[in-house]
Amino acid sequence: EINSKRLHQRFYQMAEIGKTEKKGVSRLALTKEDRVGRELFIKWLKKLKLNIRVDDFGNIFARKEGSNPSLPPVVFGSHLDSVPNGGKFDGTLGVLAAVEVVETICENNIQHDFPLEIVMFTNEEGARYTQPMLGSGAITGVLQKEYVYQLKDDNGIAFIDALKEIGYLGNQENRVSKVKAFIELHIEQGPVLFDKGATIGIVKGIQGISWQKVTFAGQADHAGPTPMAQRKDAFVSAIKAMDKIHRWVSKLKDETSVTFGKCSVSPNVVNVVPGQVTFTVDLRHPNKKILNQRVDKVKEIILTIASHTETEEQIEEISFMEPVLFSERLVKEIENICDENGYSYHAMFSGAGHDAMYMNRLGETVMIFVPSVDGKSHCEEEESLWKDIYQGTDLLFQLVCKEIGA
Amino acid sequence: EINSKRLHQRFYQMAEIGKTEKKGVSRLALTKEDRVGRELFIKWLKKLKLNIRVDDFGNIFARKEGSNPSLPPVVFGSHLDSVPNGGKFDGTLGVLAAVEVVETICENNIQHDFPLEIVMFTNEEGARYTQPMLGSGAITGVLQKEYVYQLKDDNGIAFIDALKEIGYLGNQENRVSKVKAFIELHIEQGPVLFDKGATIGIVKGIQGISWQKVTFAGQADHAGPTPMAQRKDAFVSAIKAMDKIHRWVSKLKDETSVTFGKCSVSPNVVNVVPGQVTFTVDLRHPNKKILNQRVDKVKEIILTIASHTETEEQIEEISFMEPVLFSERLVKEIENICDENGYSYHAMFSGAGHDAMYMNRLGETVMIFVPSVDGKSHCEEEESLWKDIYQGTDLLFQLVCKEIGA
Ligand SMILES: NC(=O)NCCC(=O)O
Ligand SMILES: NC(=O)NCCC(=O)O
Repeated sequence: EINSKRLHQRFYQMAEIGKTEKKGVSRLALTKEDRVGRELFIKWLKKLKLNIRVDDFGNIFARKEGSNPSLPPVVFGSHLDSVPNGGKFDGTLGVLAAVEVVETICENNIQHDFPLEIVMFTNEEGARYTQPMLGSGAITGVLQKEYVYQLKDDNGIAFIDALKEIGYLGNQENRVSKVKAFIELHIEQGPVLFDKGATIGIVKGIQGISWQKVTFAGQADHAGPTPMAQRKDAFVSAIKAMDKIHRWVSKLKDETSVTFGKCSVSPNVVNVVPGQVTFTVDLRHPNKKILNQRVDKVKEIILTIASHTETEEQIEEISFMEPVLFSERLVKEIENICDENGYSYHAMFSGAGHDAMYMNRLGETVMIFVPSVDGKSHCEEEESLWKDIYQGTDLLFQLVCKEIGA
Repeated sequence: EINSKRLHQRFYQMAEIGKTEKKGVSRLALTKEDRVGRELFIKWLKKLKLNIRVDDFGNIFARKEGSNPSLPPVVFGSHLDSVPNGGKFDGTLGVLAAVEVVETICENNIQHDFPLEIVMFTNEEGARYTQPMLGSGAITGVLQKEYVYQLKDDNGIAFIDALKEIGYLGNQENRVSKVKAFIELHIEQGPVLFDKGATIGIVKGIQGISWQKVTFAGQADHAGPTPMAQRKDAFVSAIKAMDKIHRWVSKLKDETSVTFGKCSVSPNVVNVVPGQVTFTVDLRHPNKKILNQRVDKVKEIILTIASHTETEEQIEEISFMEPVLFSERLVKEIENICDENGYSYHAMFSGAGHDAMYMNRLGETVMIFVPSVDGKSHCEEEESLWKDIYQGTDLLFQLVCKEIGA
């Protein structure tokens, strides 16, 4: 039996770190807040006498051996970083539930064959370093080490420098390279479970995600005496492109989603016609082929606008994350546990990317969702109900026990 | 006879201060660069043994008495601040030409009745503190002192603190309150003179300018699992509003111009649906009544978009600068001097606001423009030809001499 009270207490202890005015969390990757969060996490791991390691991307692993150390480990966990003014459940829940599961196993002296490992991944959000699931992407061979180390945040600070700064640059041999199973408990971050009134989301896979960075370059000029017809206004090009893309996606009425989350206007002065504008396009679809078609159409719209407005466009792919399908066996295992325990569930796809998306490459993978109140996430209003969280954590506990051969 | 070589030399000395890579200038108001520019300016003034004063907004005046100190002064000058990555001519030319005019008067021991004053105004651009012609607006009673002192830059630094920081907080009694004439030499910043091949622009007045700050507030949410139809995307509202406003103004095919120069998206993360977006609207028209109609229409569009997209709008007027008409007598004087000297000229309105717009309240005012190559301004490519600048400065010299009763 997991200790709900302990989980609850730890959760609110962690929620203090980077707490915002409206009780959300700003704990961006590799900041001081991230470091303090890691320290608290490690304090708990040490009490459990786990074997702690940090890899060359700051991912933290905590291992407990089973009877056969040569077997691949069962790995579970999530991330502790947040978006700015984000919620306290996103990522954190999966990490703290993992700690609770292992503490329950230790306390009850549960014997097992397979090693188990708790994991906390670095920069999952892609908020500070614009590459989501960076830590898991790096150790699974999706992202190159040189590329990751040189990534810059908005203030020009390289990933490697920020990692060293908080003291979490570990060794390459500390990565995990093969898993018996990877299991991630997470909040849904969307409205499906909450609307259905289900407690558990059994995640069958994750939709594909494309991130692109678009730049329009025109000509900075004076907003007063420069006739509208003679301008090369980079912001007008960007506005026209975003409006057109948004209209087109809205008309599709399918599962495609598009978001322009980030934008910077230069020189960003009231009376200067913008000379350069950069914005991001987050495009999603569950089907890889269709997602690719959507990406192509976005590019086409941008090229057309650029030629009509006589501005120069540049499109840079930040990331293309193919849709993934999780282990059917693990999905079935979860269904069984839910049925046995009378947990209401719904099998679904994830709209958000998660470290499980990349960990899937190292072995059988699955995710467990608990509902997000009103579907809200990546905001301070993010909320999940504790009755759901306890069931989700218990489900994680039971699945882990099965997988480690307890 | 003005000394062209001296003017040219001083100009390039000043252009070093805040010089950018592409030989433009970033000398934002009340920054270290502004302070260094002011120091160089004051060094020149001191050599001319002028009576220097600084007022309570950091405006600098340098006075030379005439035979009758009780007469109102003839004031001329401009500003030394720039937009980020702006040009080296904007404002600076008018200040350095004024120094050159006075040096020529001193050198030749020209006797005059009226006092003369060179002036350098603070924060003309409205780039750092989003209130253009701040220094002249403050001393002419358009802007309240308390309001101006508490204005914040994008980093939250109050005007009064920045003014103290660079050491240019002077006394209220040092303001100018009445002028016999105010004359400002400036680059045109638009294409009219260059396209016409005229050397001198005789500025009959300035069009009206409205600056507004628009905020859309929606709901931050996750870009992945949040269905498009359930979002309150503040950036989508802003994009739709700006696109609609731009399309409408483009269709007017009259003198109305609109610019969205500044925009900030919050939280500005790739995978977060923007919860809040702020942008500025710079609207201009030579006719006050029509400008007011344009402003109303912009507000109407914003309100409509807000109600359609279920986001909350807020519209804040930063500034409404009524169109002004300059002194017909001074316009005529300039025409006469041009005719006498064979300077080609064109009478025109200014598309940009200038300190002359507010100084007009203190006495007869006029402006002299010299052409901007290709009409470019507020960018590093800003350029004016020296043959034009010499003629413009000579014209300023002759007009000042007439006005001071030399
Ligand atoms: N869960 C989460 O926010 N992941 C980041 C990647 C994404 O944007 O889906
Ligand atoms: N000349 C100039 O750039 N003035 C600032 C006010 C305006 O935007 O017109």
